[in-house]
Amino acid sequence: MTAARAQNEPDVAGKDVAGDVRRLASAAKDAGRILARASGDARDDALRKAANIIRARQDEILTANGKDVVFGQARNLSAAMIDRLTLTPDRIEAMATGLETVANLPNPIGSILADWEQPNGLKFQRVRVPLGVIGIIYESRPNVTADAGGLCLKSGNAAVLRGGSESIHSSGLIGDCLRDGLEAAGLPRDCIQAIKTRDRAAVGAMLTATGLIDIIVPRGGRSLIERVMAETKIPIIAHLEGICHIYVDRAADPDMARDITVNAKMRRTGICGAAETLLIDKTIASAQLPGIVDALSDKGCEVRGDAAAQGIDSRITPASTEDWETEYLDAIISVKVVNDVEDAVAHINRHGSEHTDSIVTEDDAAAEKFLSEVDSAIVMHNASTQFADGGEFGMGAEIGISTGKLHARGPVGAEELTTYKYVVRGTGQVRP
Amino acid sequence: MTAARAQNEPDVAGKDVAGDVRRLASAAKDAGRILARASGDARDDALRKAANIIRARQDEILTANGKDVVFGQARNLSAAMIDRLTLTPDRIEAMATGLETVANLPNPIGSILADWEQPNGLKFQRVRVPLGVIGIIYESRPNVTADAGGLCLKSGNAAVLRGGSESIHSSGLIGDCLRDGLEAAGLPRDCIQAIKTRDRAAVGAMLTATGLIDIIVPRGGRSLIERVMAETKIPIIAHLEGICHIYVDRAADPDMARDITVNAKMRRTGICGAAETLLIDKTIASAQLPGIVDALSDKGCEVRGDAAAQGIDSRITPASTEDWETEYLDAIISVKVVNDVEDAVAHINRHGSEHTDSIVTEDDAAAEKFLSEVDSAIVMHNASTQFADGGEFGMGAEIGISTGKLHARGPVGAEELTTYKYVVRGTGQVRP
Repeated sequence: MTAARAQNEPDVAGKDVAGDVRRLASAAKDAGRILARASGDARDDALRKAANIIRARQDEILTANGKDVVFGQARNLSAAMIDRLTLTPDRIEAMATGLETVANLPNPIGSILADWEQPNGLKFQRVRVPLGVIGIIYESRPNVTADAGGLCLKSGNAAVLRGGSESIHSSGLIGDCLRDGLEAAGLPRDCIQAIKTRDRAAVGAMLTATGLIDIIVPRGGRSLIERVMAETKIPIIAHLEGICHIYVDRAADPDMARDITVNAKMRRTGICGAAETLLIDKTIASAQLPGIVDALSDKGCEVRGDAAAQGIDSRITPASTEDWETEYLDAIISVKVVNDVEDAVAHINRHGSEHTDSIVTEDDAAAEKFLSEVDSAIVMHNASTQFADGGEFGMGAEIGISTGKLHARGPVGAEELTTYKYVVRGTGQVRP
Repeated sequence: MTAARAQNEPDVAGKDVAGDVRRLASAAKDAGRILARASGDARDDALRKAANIIRARQDEILTANGKDVVFGQARNLSAAMIDRLTLTPDRIEAMATGLETVANLPNPIGSILADWEQPNGLKFQRVRVPLGVIGIIYESRPNVTADAGGLCLKSGNAAVLRGGSESIHSSGLIGDCLRDGLEAAGLPRDCIQAIKTRDRAAVGAMLTATGLIDIIVPRGGRSLIERVMAETKIPIIAHLEGICHIYVDRAADPDMARDITVNAKMRRTGICGAAETLLIDKTIASAQLPGIVDALSDKGCEVRGDAAAQGIDSRITPASTEDWETEYLDAIISVKVVNDVEDAVAHINRHGSEHTDSIVTEDDAAAEKFLSEVDSAIVMHNASTQFADGGEFGMGAEIGISTGKLHARGPVGAEELTTYKYVVRGTGQVRP
């Protein structure tokens, strides 16, 4: 496929896509050093100015997005994908408001995380600093350009942004708005690089830009994450799938168990914090499962289950072993009857994805066992897994939920996009 | 090469090396879950018991080590490598004392890093937890088995330890002592797995044990690190080389500049915190460089430099561009004359390895500029780079110095071998 040219600034549209991406990343690296040393106020000013520029250019953004939608329809994107690609005046306003929300968060950079002195008089500080250049690869969702770019700027990082190929007109233009906001605040435009080519070689070039891009953040489906993990040696903050569980303990309050299960599954089925499997204690399964299935069925949810669950409720269709490790992202739930909390924990640690899991119980000892032994980024007691979200955590905004154990775990906000350095001050000390 | 059998417990010595390594790692994973939930006192008890078992088995360890040394000599290891392979009663006592020192550190597990409540009544905690199973690949230095294994146990992690092939008798036996210590403290032996085969396939099996080993820590030369980075998809905590700089500013105290340079280069040339390049401000280079070269030459250090440095002191031999990116680990230093602190920062950010760099100056503004703008894990003012060491930082012990930006940066001690989980407690909240 030949590289398509975006109508707005065609940053990457030539034949040497890989070279162009490296050039953009290198410019981002240099610009990022200036951004890192700028004041928090200057960075916030850039975010607020970008928000207003997005508002002012709403009509242009809608026009560019219209082209993207036509292209996406010609490519036969699903209705859900077209919906995520489509911008409206409300969605554009939400992007602008989102940037202002991020601007209002506390500045994470420069805070002193620890401070001590050794007997030889050396003074140590651990100081929070940006990561550098963050490469973000995402689907055809133009609003992510503003959300992810804004979080990077907030945390003093430069960003190389590569949205899905159906979104390049609108993503590119939103990237330009962020660049204009930087310039208006007296900061270098090159802190934000929105790649404007449909050529997939751009992704490969990002994945091999060791030394120019410090961190890769893939946001998307399993195949994208797997491609990124296979092709890059750059460290990644990966958001893998969310195979989230609700465990209804023998000491659960029945109404609460039903309400939490229905909310965790059906409030929104397409988010990573949606529950995919219900585990229910065998001692209360006969009494409580039919009511839960009633409530799920009322909302249009298909229920699959193991033999024990099917024996309790004939509406439950058979689940295969594959079901225990499937992120449906749809109105389907799998049900398994377990012996006790220990059995539930073992199932989750074996089949889950270390994302978010919740126990419903009035028994504090069972709850503490579950919270301690389930090895997931987020463990909950008497709450819906749909709260797995940076905003709900009070973090203001998030770039995703990390299911890895290194660096950030759970919601990744501005603070999680930072690292630290040690600053050591002496008076001429040499080591004996 | 056929797998050699260690005289002590031959855990991995069969034909199916890869299968055996996976079996050990899987046992470590199960055992690690128990270790993670044990009390800090139980883990410390295991460390102290292991220390005493090492003391009690000193003669056996020396005998096993003697076999390793004979094997190493037959393989024509260098004198330095034989030295690092060789154990003595003093070195064995140092291992035991090291384990006791780690036991006396505060327990990092279970501490609450943050604690807040949202308006909907959900209570959030960020709690420190172990990483899981840490795979450590190191050179033929049997003491690392105790040091690294001890830090893993302290931080609630299981460990799969693979020392260099010349050290398998002594490393394996030290691993057994750690296992005995665990058992004596009522904890599962399988938390420590010291791989006892010379077959290099064991390393490959570790690097592909995704899902069983959570983190890989390579400790060794550049070729090992590069192999690990190329072959594994498991996240790594990598210690790359230390290309450390001393920058002598125009406002440096001349005696301090000389003493710090000599100490940073020559105290021990083989450690990663040793300085490799001296940058000196052009305005004071003529006055101060000859005295620094005098002092370095007195200690037997070869001095290479750029044209400007050679013009000042005829003892300085030419440096090639390669010299600016070489970790000599030897009595050689490269010298470059720079225009000012800005030029020094640019050189370090371009040629350094983001390890440790120090400015010598009495000018606080120059110092703050250097500390802020040099993008390294450790930045220093008026101190020797040889202080880049977890012990000197007051961390008690370290597994290495991380030059990466994700997760841990700088010295990696017990606390850096942990992650966190979010614990969310509700009263039936569902998300609107």
